[in-house]
Amino acid sequence: TSAPSVAAALALPRERGWLRITGLDNRAVAELGKRLGVHPLVLEDILNPGQRPKAETHASYLFFVVDVPALTEVGLEEVQVSLLVFSDLVVSVEEKPNPFFATVEKRLALGSGRLFQFGSDYLAYALVDAAVDHFFPVLEKLGERLEGMEEVLLQQHDQILPQLHQLRRDLLRLRRSLWPLREAVGALLREESPLLSPEVRVFVRDVQDHVLYLLDILESYRETAASLLELYLSTVAQRTNEVMKVLTVIGTIFLPLTFIVGVYGMNFQHMPELAWPWAYPALWAIMVVLALGMLRAFRRRGWL
Amino acid sequence: TSAPSVAAALALPRERGWLRITGLDNRAVAELGKRLGVHPLVLEDILNPGQRPKAETHASYLFFVVDVPALTEVGLEEVQVSLLVFSDLVVSVEEKPNPFFATVEKRLALGSGRLFQFGSDYLAYALVDAAVDHFFPVLEKLGERLEGMEEVLLQQHDQILPQLHQLRRDLLRLRRSLWPLREAVGALLREESPLLSPEVRVFVRDVQDHVLYLLDILESYRETAASLLELYLSTVAQRTNEVMKVLTVIGTIFLPLTFIVGVYGMNFQHMPELAWPWAYPALWAIMVVLALGMLRAFRRRGWL
Amino acid sequence: TSAPSVAAALALPRERGWLRITGLDNRAVAELGKRLGVHPLVLEDILNPGQRPKAETHASYLFFVVDVPALTEVGLEEVQVSLLVFSDLVVSVEEKPNPFFATVEKRLALGSGRLFQFGSDYLAYALVDAAVDHFFPVLEKLGERLEGMEEVLLQQHDQILPQLHQLRRDLLRLRRSLWPLREAVGALLREESPLLSPEVRVFVRDVQDHVLYLLDILESYRETAASLLELYLSTVAQRTNEVMKVLTVIGTIFLPLTFIVGVYGMNFQHMPELAWPWAYPALWAIMVVLALGMLRAFRRRGWL
Amino acid sequence: TSAPSVAAALALPRERGWLRITGLDNRAVAELGKRLGVHPLVLEDILNPGQRPKAETHASYLFFVVDVPALTEVGLEEVQVSLLVFSDLVVSVEEKPNPFFATVEKRLALGSGRLFQFGSDYLAYALVDAAVDHFFPVLEKLGERLEGMEEVLLQQHDQILPQLHQLRRDLLRLRRSLWPLREAVGALLREESPLLSPEVRVFVRDVQDHVLYLLDILESYRETAASLLELYLSTVAQRTNEVMKVLTVIGTIFLPLTFIVGVYGMNFQHMPELAWPWAYPALWAIMVVLALGMLRAFRRRGWL
Amino acid sequence: TSAPSVAAALALPRERGWLRITGLDNRAVAELGKRLGVHPLVLEDILNPGQRPKAETHASYLFFVVDVPALTEVGLEEVQVSLLVFSDLVVSVEEKPNPFFATVEKRLALGSGRLFQFGSDYLAYALVDAAVDHFFPVLEKLGERLEGMEEVLLQQHDQILPQLHQLRRDLLRLRRSLWPLREAVGALLREESPLLSPEVRVFVRDVQDHVLYLLDILESYRETAASLLELYLSTVAQRTNEVMKVLTVIGTIFLPLTFIVGVYGMNFQHMPELAWPWAYPALWAIMVVLALGMLRAFRRRGWL
Repeated sequence: TSAPSVAAALALPRERGWLRITGLDNRAVAELGKRLGVHPLVLEDILNPGQRPKAETHASYLFFVVDVPALTEVGLEEVQVSLLVFSDLVVSVEEKPNPFFATVEKRLALGSGRLFQFGSDYLAYALVDAAVDHFFPVLEKLGERLEGMEEVLLQQHDQILPQLHQLRRDLLRLRRSLWPLREAVGALLREESPLLSPEVRVFVRDVQDHVLYLLDILESYRETAASLLELYLSTVAQRTNEVMKVLTVIGTIFLPLTFIVGVYGMNFQHMPELAWPWAYPALWAIMVVLALGMLRAFRRRGWL
Repeated sequence: TSAPSVAAALALPRERGWLRITGLDNRAVAELGKRLGVHPLVLEDILNPGQRPKAETHASYLFFVVDVPALTEVGLEEVQVSLLVFSDLVVSVEEKPNPFFATVEKRLALGSGRLFQFGSDYLAYALVDAAVDHFFPVLEKLGERLEGMEEVLLQQHDQILPQLHQLRRDLLRLRRSLWPLREAVGALLREESPLLSPEVRVFVRDVQDHVLYLLDILESYRETAASLLELYLSTVAQRTNEVMKVLTVIGTIFLPLTFIVGVYGMNFQHMPELAWPWAYPALWAIMVVLALGMLRAFRRRGWL
Repeated sequence: TSAPSVAAALALPRERGWLRITGLDNRAVAELGKRLGVHPLVLEDILNPGQRPKAETHASYLFFVVDVPALTEVGLEEVQVSLLVFSDLVVSVEEKPNPFFATVEKRLALGSGRLFQFGSDYLAYALVDAAVDHFFPVLEKLGERLEGMEEVLLQQHDQILPQLHQLRRDLLRLRRSLWPLREAVGALLREESPLLSPEVRVFVRDVQDHVLYLLDILESYRETAASLLELYLSTVAQRTNEVMKVLTVIGTIFLPLTFIVGVYGMNFQHMPELAWPWAYPALWAIMVVLALGMLRAFRRRGWL
Repeated sequence: TSAPSVAAALALPRERGWLRITGLDNRAVAELGKRLGVHPLVLEDILNPGQRPKAETHASYLFFVVDVPALTEVGLEEVQVSLLVFSDLVVSVEEKPNPFFATVEKRLALGSGRLFQFGSDYLAYALVDAAVDHFFPVLEKLGERLEGMEEVLLQQHDQILPQLHQLRRDLLRLRRSLWPLREAVGALLREESPLLSPEVRVFVRDVQDHVLYLLDILESYRETAASLLELYLSTVAQRTNEVMKVLTVIGTIFLPLTFIVGVYGMNFQHMPELAWPWAYPALWAIMVVLALGMLRAFRRRGWL
Repeated sequence: TSAPSVAAALALPRERGWLRITGLDNRAVAELGKRLGVHPLVLEDILNPGQRPKAETHASYLFFVVDVPALTEVGLEEVQVSLLVFSDLVVSVEEKPNPFFATVEKRLALGSGRLFQFGSDYLAYALVDAAVDHFFPVLEKLGERLEGMEEVLLQQHDQILPQLHQLRRDLLRLRRSLWPLREAVGALLREESPLLSPEVRVFVRDVQDHVLYLLDILESYRETAASLLELYLSTVAQRTNEVMKVLTVIGTIFLPLTFIVGVYGMNFQHMPELAWPWAYPALWAIMVVLALGMLRAFRRRGWL
């Protein structure tokens, strides 16, 4: 299908070459796909959220899927955004209402800048770029939480473990979105589609840089989280060791002394020591010397 | 052999180009292989279950092996499915009776859709796709078990270790099926076999996406399981530490006090304190002060 | 050297194109190498066991080295097998007497099947295949040992650690044989040597599949062994924790009680309680209430 | 734009083809970028510090970004240095005042050596080389700290954990600068830009060697740090074990003895032993024998 | 420069095309480099020991750097050996006096064998081979130490940790020498330099095999060392657990008994039991039954 006919084939409202569909309306998408000649498998991918991010080059259009994380009040949530890039039209299908494309809409409303100079490929770039930009605040937030945990951990509050585990799972989830995204953008840059002009290709390379940068940060967060858990375990082990030492010192000092006083609490009729007038103070002296000797031995071993 | 002769060479019952063999009947397969000109090594692979998933391009046919996991009541079980794709016939050999191809059979019975438009390569795709689709519920089940363990773990039930170990082994086993499957489908897409039409190639790419997605999930489950074990170990270490502290506090408070009361239980004839009228209440006062002082010291160290 | 001359150049006894040398007889190998025009470095590799498995393509011959593990009564032992594949002769040099090639010899003695249809490359394939097949029982044995350990571990016998360590070393050793073997067979398949006919190439691909399959199993055994050690450590940590709790419960209950009875064992002359008639049963009542209260507190904390 | 016009187009002060801008003056950079025909995305990268190191080949210039670590009094800090290499001009933009290029400036002031023989590409090389050279003292410093920790650790000072964690994070951060730098220099060497003369290419290869060397050191530091933490944990575990043994020995010896003396402290009217004249010395003898027997048993078990 | 002129350009003493320089004499090397037309960066690499092993192909010479480990009495030491291979001359620069090339010198002195048949590339190969051969005894030594540790570890001597850490660092250091060496030799084999004749190329491939083999051994040593540390930690954990159990058994048996005897050591005037004639033997009976009951309970729990 030639370029003008695609745009003309649609009786739907559209805005400067961008048809935006929010929510997964099966019938509307199927109807649209039929008119635009989109492959049934592509339509299936659009309508089933939870797809792996990817880029596909078809004869008359490019197909692109991104999973964008959104910070809701409940936690981390992923929203699938699918793009169909024709030569004169971009169709975006978003799984749920979201604020990802607010900036692009504003720029279009202002009628300013490059969005009008270039074709639909630049618009598609602008949308992907806006989506990728939403990873940054999410990662930043997780990074802040990591730093917070680090401080808390060194002050021995113990509620940190489940939180750290949750954070690691969130990072894992983000990686599951970012890693295939990297491949997808790379595939787009490698393939020679006439739908992607050299001018816009430079911008796509910039998106690629962002994704690589996000992955760098993500990996170093993951390593920091792992090292934090190790730090936690080391701290616990060290504290247990310290507590053990105190217990040992106490046991070592008082158990023998308690034995000694027990000896002279026995009721044998023939215990000559009990009658000696200086026995009691002498025993005190012996016990003090014994206790001090043991304390000294511990200090030499480094247990005090 | 030219395409029609392959179909004609068989006097066996067949159904729209699909010859389905369930159970490993050595003689039947050998006979069939001979008539269809299948390489002896391929027949050997078909008859020996436990093969590594793979795809091989031969002159007149494609050979494809998948290991499909099935959730039985005993546990995870693997069923080998082998496909021989000729230009006008698909031969499937399944190790055991199984429900994998029920949907494909239904679509054939209904006589509907694409299964009749395209050739045997599309049928083969439909079978592989149906097989790969059976990984999803298995992984989902394992994912649910992982989540269940996570909740149980934080409530300190201790029967979780063998279960977690079992889960990790199941994931390892699934990976042993999925990883080579990824290579196999990739090899099919790379090689230029005339048996695979460009239309069906698009569908095979979709299977590839599914396999990659399954691998993504699998790897993140494996990491979650590993992190769960670490969480468990940390929790145990922390609890041991807590228990140690209680023990130390008790020892530290009562051992000295028990020593003191032991001293005045001694039977020396010359112990002046025993005769003092206010000695007993004074000793109680001293012991209470001592105990409170030690409690305060522990609170400062953060042991209470 | 042309093909017939190689065979004719030898006055040594030979059997259908296969010259088998068992034991490393330096002089014989050197003499043979000279007559057949083998490179000195290749002869060196043949005579020094412990080589890395590899494949080399020379002008008039292929050189192939495999390390085959053998289960002896002492433990795991490796036997180096070197193959020189000429166009009409295969020379095999085995480090020690071994049963690896018994099946090939039997097939030759029976004069049956493909061994006579194809040339020396098929014979070489049959030998490599027989060698690779000897990895399977070894791995199976190690797998059985792993499973045995798993059961033992959960029943708390403690002699398992050195055995597990030994098993991991055996797996490491097998990997050192298998990993380069994979590269070697791969190199053979990539290079275009006229000594390897397309018919036999299919069989070599089958050997490659076996090696990949062995590596898959090996890696999953290695992971299982690692996870087994983690399971062991977790079990030990959990048991230590359980033991600690019992100790703490005992200490917490009996230390205060022992202190109390110590108090009334003191010999002060002025202890009014000692004279009260209901003091003794009252003290028992107090102590029972105290013990029950502490037991209840522990149950609430989950320590019992 | 031809080479002379670029240089002529600037009314800014410049020094032998090198325009050095310190601090991120948005207006000045934008103005300069416009005059020199620099792509807006490149200007954006220059003005937003914290970019991933990279090299980009544009039509009339090369763009290069490095993150250089600087040891300040507070800690590790990263300074972004961006280079625009035209055929007769190098523009460097540094995020903050820094000492990185002092040596290059000195060599220019002296008017000596190769800096005048070659073109702007050699100057660019000299700048990148000077920047990369600043990684060495930073890594050396971290290496010294690692060695210091090692000594401290074996002498059981316990403040080492947070420091070790900090060091690991610093190494992680350096890796985030070095790893993409390696790719960037590699990309420069692979691409065939006319802006990079073969003579200077040799020097760039030298920078590549330095980066690889830095990465080697970095990775081995990271492994040493990890192994240091393991060493720490092992040391703590061993010390806990040692302390436990002492506690057990004491408990095992004194608890039975204390029980025995407790028995003869009971006040039953009918205890025949109490009246025996040799009972007291006999009891002492029994207790000494018991204690020595237990000590011997411990020595056999290796607990003393 | 043509081949004869290089040899003639030197007025230095030389021996059959091999100029050997021991120690880093800056002036001599600079002078020599100037006469032979060596690139300044190459001279710099020669004079600064601690370079990353590498191979560089220049127009009229090959440059090769190896770091050879030497076992001195103090510990592991690395000696840098640089080779410049011209068409009729090999210049070797060794950082320190060393025994690496003794065998090559002897073969030259004997005037025997291949060293005279081939050109300077064979001589260079012989030198690199001699250098690589010095890795074997070092690795063997470390392997012996590893095995020694394994035996010691299972007999519970505790000085093993710092030694194991040291060994791991040595292995890490060797890897830093071997890994780039592998790349260097690989680069030499890939590049098509006329300075490397096909005959010698076969020998270089042999060196490559050696390096790969060394790396295999090294990696398996590293894994063995890691697994040894885990074994150590498991052993310590198990021993702590065993010690804990003994402590618990003692506490559980003697604390209640001590409490009971304490009860009857109290001095209340109204304790009816004290007057019963059979109270004392009855109490003994009760205590024995109690102790045996507890012992039985422990045996059932597997604590004895």
